[in-house]
Amino acid sequence: MEVSVWLVGAGPGDPELLTVKAARLLAAADVVVHDALVGDGVLALVPASTELIDVGKRPGRPIPQELISTLLVTLARDGQRVVRLKGGDPFVFGRGGEEAQALLDAGIPFEVVPGITSAVAAPAAAGVPVTHRGVAASFTVVTGHRPAGEPDIDWRALAGVGGTVVVLMGVSQRATIAAELTAGGLDPATPVAAVQSATTGDQVTVRCRLDELADAPVRSPAVLVIGAVAALELSAVGAAALTQSP
Amino acid sequence: MEVSVWLVGAGPGDPELLTVKAARLLAAADVVVHDALVGDGVLALVPASTELIDVGKRPGRPIPQELISTLLVTLARDGQRVVRLKGGDPFVFGRGGEEAQALLDAGIPFEVVPGITSAVAAPAAAGVPVTHRGVAASFTVVTGHRPAGEPDIDWRALAGVGGTVVVLMGVSQRATIAAELTAGGLDPATPVAAVQSATTGDQVTVRCRLDELADAPVRSPAVLVIGAVAALELSAVGAAALTQSP
Repeated sequence: MEVSVWLVGAGPGDPELLTVKAARLLAAADVVVHDALVGDGVLALVPASTELIDVGKRPGRPIPQELISTLLVTLARDGQRVVRLKGGDPFVFGRGGEEAQALLDAGIPFEVVPGITSAVAAPAAAGVPVTHRGVAASFTVVTGHRPAGEPDIDWRALAGVGGTVVVLMGVSQRATIAAELTAGGLDPATPVAAVQSATTGDQVTVRCRLDELADAPVRSPAVLVIGAVAALELSAVGAAALTQSP
Repeated sequence: MEVSVWLVGAGPGDPELLTVKAARLLAAADVVVHDALVGDGVLALVPASTELIDVGKRPGRPIPQELISTLLVTLARDGQRVVRLKGGDPFVFGRGGEEAQALLDAGIPFEVVPGITSAVAAPAAAGVPVTHRGVAASFTVVTGHRPAGEPDIDWRALAGVGGTVVVLMGVSQRATIAAELTAGGLDPATPVAAVQSATTGDQVTVRCRLDELADAPVRSPAVLVIGAVAALELSAVGAAALTQSP
């Protein structure tokens, strides 16, 4: 059976960080169903003749996940070629698993197309490698946003692992996260880099110590990088160079 | 100053999982310096007129990291536009940080272009989401390959975090890893998925329990996914569909 729904990662923001496959699928889709987290530059690549449906879960206007899954099934049964476009990667806190399960249950052929996760790309855009020889040999990606029914994160155990901690959607919870990691044994002087609006023209990086994080002027959306690597700044060129051609 | 070296992630293997930017840079480079982990399909995209240098660290023929960094600096000073192409992402166990540091020290303008890491894409290609609502709210990426001088991984602490564990380059160490995670409290019945040669035509997934991992017939290169998500198989189409067009 032919694939009719593609769950596609849109990457961290910069349209050039789409995969070749994602760009090809966007150009050929009948309908694109997208999140609020997908950058405007990416959406600009969708042909004007393609139907664009915004199911972004903005505060005050929540669209239940079940409704989104039902929409995908309905569109596919209607014979449409559907690209479900998600910020970053569909399986990294993208709830792509739930949509994949709904499509599987409905017997709709689908395919998952990975995207560049901001968990790795946002630190990189600020010159921070999530792993670095002699400094960090692991990284853990965790979300600060914890809806009801989610398994707990043992932040204190996480503090004992010894690797980099990358927190997505954690700006509003940063005081609690810092306190828990410190209680777990992480040095209060541990470097932190908070990368806002990574890989876009609005990118800003705030650097501080773990014990300064609660009061640091960090605004959503931001990726928090906690660990020794956050002290690194391995970039020779600024954000402007992201659009520079060879 | 104009950028002269790009540290570029080649993604997990499928050439369509290159980023648009990586494809553009490959087409415009004077020299491409690549690893053994970069797939043949990706290398086939390099124009025939472009110089291709293989610095893959194959067993028995190790090229010291310092020599690779020196090569990049030399080529850049020679006026070449150099793409340094690495499997996956340059900053996820790619030693991209060391090369970035060497370029920074030499005053060579460079840029890091993220790639899709196999830590996320390999599980996805087997239908395994690294995070899944109600099942896993974090994932840790760790390497089983531990050269001298690397910081230790506290596998027992990691077992306490409660999220997904993704191990790269861990096939030969899988008995030790399983024993340490079990000693840390992970259930011996924890599901494991080992994804070999992900996103290529040779992809094979071996599924077992944590206490069966040591004896499971897993061959390198493989990505090990350990955790409740590894029991999921959210794929409606086989690997053949990776090259299927809409």
